[in-house]
This record gives sequence, structure tokens and C-alpha cells, in this order.
Amino acid sequence: MVDLSDARTLARAATWIEARRPEAETLLKELFPKTGHALILGITGPPGAGKSTLVNQLTAKLREQKKTVAILAVDPTSPYSGGAILGDRIRMLQHHADPGVFIRSMATRGWLGGLARAATETTLLLDAAGFDVVMIETVGVGQDEVEVARLAGVTAVVLVPGMGDDVQAIKAGIMEIADVFVINKADQPGADKLENDLKAWHRAKVVKTIATDGIGIDETLAAIQEAQAKAKDPARAAQIWTGRLREMLRDRLLDRIPAEEFVAGGKAVAERRQDPYSVIHDWLDRY
Amino acid sequence: MVDLSDARTLARAATWIEARRPEAETLLKELFPKTGHALILGITGPPGAGKSTLVNQLTAKLREQKKTVAILAVDPTSPYSGGAILGDRIRMLQHHADPGVFIRSMATRGWLGGLARAATETTLLLDAAGFDVVMIETVGVGQDEVEVARLAGVTAVVLVPGMGDDVQAIKAGIMEIADVFVINKADQPGADKLENDLKAWHRAKVVKTIATDGIGIDETLAAIQEAQAKAKDPARAAQIWTGRLREMLRDRLLDRIPAEEFVAGGKAVAERRQDPYSVIHDWLDRY
Repeated sequence: MVDLSDARTLARAATWIEARRPEAETLLKELFPKTGHALILGITGPPGAGKSTLVNQLTAKLREQKKTVAILAVDPTSPYSGGAILGDRIRMLQHHADPGVFIRSMATRGWLGGLARAATETTLLLDAAGFDVVMIETVGVGQDEVEVARLAGVTAVVLVPGMGDDVQAIKAGIMEIADVFVINKADQPGADKLENDLKAWHRAKVVKTIATDGIGIDETLAAIQEAQAKAKDPARAAQIWTGRLREMLRDRLLDRIPAEEFVAGGKAVAERRQDPYSVIHDWLDRY
Repeated sequence: MVDLSDARTLARAATWIEARRPEAETLLKELFPKTGHALILGITGPPGAGKSTLVNQLTAKLREQKKTVAILAVDPTSPYSGGAILGDRIRMLQHHADPGVFIRSMATRGWLGGLARAATETTLLLDAAGFDVVMIETVGVGQDEVEVARLAGVTAVVLVPGMGDDVQAIKAGIMEIADVFVINKADQPGADKLENDLKAWHRAKVVKTIATDGIGIDETLAAIQEAQAKAKDPARAAQIWTGRLREMLRDRLLDRIPAEEFVAGGKAVAERRQDPYSVIHDWLDRY
């Protein structure tokens, strides 16, 4: 059995997961019975909302409570992986000497897809390693981020006042998955209006923060812990797993078709030698 | 053969595609030889960048040139589909009486996924229907939007000056797919710096616009038409089709597993009666 208390071992296992190494599956299968104890917290919201700052402040607060924290920063739009992206360099400096904090970045896999699957499996790994809280921070507000956030037990959506109509449209998509709304930069104009709007059409808890000043962090943590109780509901847990299985399966199915088949098929269709449906049915028959 | 010159017929066929009706596949297979003539233009960028306004202005300009235009507005974060979302209501009023403009909205399919597949198939439909230009406007900057944009022949990425560090991170993800960068709201501070930054690390054409005032639209259209020549390159066309086939296949594979299997599997894993890998391998063996 792998010693998960060692950060380097954990990092290596996370790399196996991202690289789709068969060892990852063997390890996670073995570790699976140890999972299910961590609070899996998804943190999402539009760019510029202050998610990284909030994650830092929540981590500091949880460490005061002697809780261990793993942070998985998922950036579907970044071409970098396994390294320090976004606010991670700052975080790494801040929590560098603290063995109770583990930080991992995960970025796009381009054509390979599989980000939601890799995030799920890494979350399982960190859960099995015994962290009290696993935070999954996603950048952006696209479908991929929504799917990653949906895999969490509790999802906090971070918004800022006055982001305009586009963000109103975005909210519609993340509304369903929010357990807690965090209105960050709550000293900016429009915070009260946003709070009233959210409360008018959603049952999720709404908290206000100024994350850069550490204001509202206690309230945010309290709202998250309150939502955690609901996440333990068996029906909700089964629903979360249904989504996770779908991501894991989707990824494995595409793995079965060799890359060169995709390239040859793309060429045949681009040259109008075959229609796309004939190519796909041929693959489905053969693989 | 379906009469694609009728907007209601087109709208019905688009609904078949979104609903995964078997008729859609039969129709598209039949229509496939008629495709390959339209300029497929992807327009993406962060919320608030002014994509809808730009799409409106480009449409007006193309109509002056007697070109027909189909607009597909893709919003992965919206729970609404087939209706009027985002700036569509405005557009619909503006181009209401013009049979040379067709507008369609497409939104999230939730757990069903398949947005990129549906966007691809709808684009084929509009291409076969004989539109000179098919514009795919995506909201947001997540992986899903990047994938939709990648399916286009020419991709324009709309940015605005002074969007901060988060947007800098986002740019890394959409850099690879951009054929044209549009700096919109170019009268705002930081436009020149953004232009210089983009030119320093990317070979794509950079144009500046103030879309609300119709400034820079001619230049944008010229840059797009210049990029179109490259999109006709056989290697690039094959690459685009490789991506499209992948999306279409992924969607069909998941369709094979009944929804109740996902639900039962999710429950079994949530209750720790089975590990996720055993469930997935069981499905792979049986379907």
C-alpha cells in the first residue's frame, strides 16, 4: 500500500492519474474503501471574482481549526499541467512549510478531454489520503467547470456585484449546482441588489465577503459546513456518483479508439470521401 | 429531400438534431455532399467582451455584400434551449423580416452533454442549406467553448482591454485556436498594450473595434476573410474533421448505456457496495 502521508508520493499518484497510467486505476481501486470522509468542496465562478483569494482565506481558517486541506486547482483553459498556475505560486509560498496543506494544479488535456474524470480521480486520491477538506477550484464558467463543480459534495459559487448581463446569463447555468453563493468584493456597488436577486430565486445560502481583507470568511465556512450535512444525504451522494461514473466512462470509451483512426477518419470526411456517420458507425462496430 | 430554404423546416431539423432524433442523422447523411461551401466562423471570448454586438455588426455588413448569414448562439451555461436567449431577442427584432438571416440558439443539455456534437451537426445543416456564412457565437471561455470554437473553420477571439490576470490565464487556452483577435471597446485604456502583447506572442491578425459604434467592422471582416483562405488548406480541414468526429462519437457511445444503469451504478458506488472501476468495466463488457 502506498504511503499517502508523503506529499511526493501523492504528487506522483496524481501524475499517474493525469497520464492515464494503469497503476492509477489499481491504486484507486485499492484505496476506494478509504474514501468518503472528506468534505469535497467545489469553488467556481466567473474570472475575476476572487476565487483564489477566497480559497486561501478558507484554507487559513481551516488550518486554525487544525483541519488538513488539499487544494485542486482546475483550469480547463490553461495549456499547463502539473505545475504552478494561477494563484498557486502565491499559495505555495504561503503554505510552503505546512504539511497540512497539499496543492495540486490540473490543466487542460486538449483533444484528449478527460479533465472532469481526472479531477474526480484526484479527489478520490486526496480523500483516501485523509485530508479533512478537498477544495476543487475551477477557473471560468463553462460547461466543463459546471461539470467539475457538480462532482463536488458542496459547491460554492463566487460572484461579484455589477458584472453585467452576460454574467446574469451565466448565473442561470450555475444556479442549479450552487449550495452556497459568495458575493465577493461586497463593498462594491450593487452587492445588496445581487444579494436580493439571488435570495429571490434560489434557496441556497448567500454570504458576503471581502476576501482580500478576510471579511466574511467565518460566515462562508459556516454556510459550507451547513450545506455539508445535506451532501451526506444518500440520494444526493448517489446522484454525485452517477455523474462521476459518467465522466470516468466517457474517458475510457474514447481511449479504445486509436488516435490514427481519428486522423484517417477526419481526412476521409474532409475530402468528402466518406460521410461522418459512416465513419462513426464503422468505429462503433469495430471497437 | 427536405426544402432547406424554408426557415421553419430548418428550425425543425435543428430541433431533431438537439433531441437526437434518428431523422436528424438520416437527413444529415443525405445532405453531407452539399456541405463544405460556407465560411464557418467561430466567435468566442470572455463574458462582457461584446461578442453579440460584434456578431450583429458583422451580419449587417455581410448582408450589405448580399451574403446570407446563419447565426448559431451556443450557451453551455444556460438551461434554456431552442428559444431566444442572450442578445437573440434583439437580433431577431433587427433581422426579423430578412430571409437572408437565420438565427438559432442552443443551450446546455445538462448531464446529457453533447453540446459540441449538436453544434457541429447544426453547422452542417446550415452549411448544406446554402448560407454563405455560418457564425457560431459561444458564451464564456471554458473548455466546452474552446472545443466548439475549434470546430469552426475560422475562429475570432474577442477581448477587451483591462480584464485583469484571470483573463490573461484564459487567453493561454484560447491562444492556440485564434485565427483573428478582436480587441473590442478599443477606446478603453489598455487597448494598445493588449494589442502589443498579442502581437508579441501570436501570429494571428489583431484588429481593434468599438462594435457598439460600428468602428472596425470592415477590418474585422477583412481579417476573417484572409484567415478563411488558410482554413481551406486540406491538412487544416482534416484536423477540424478529426475533432468533429470525436465529439460525434463520444456522444453516441454514451447513448448506448441506459440512464437507469447510471443511476443504479451511482447508488452502488455511493453506498460503497462496489468500486467505480468495477462498475465501469462491467458496462464496457456489456455494451
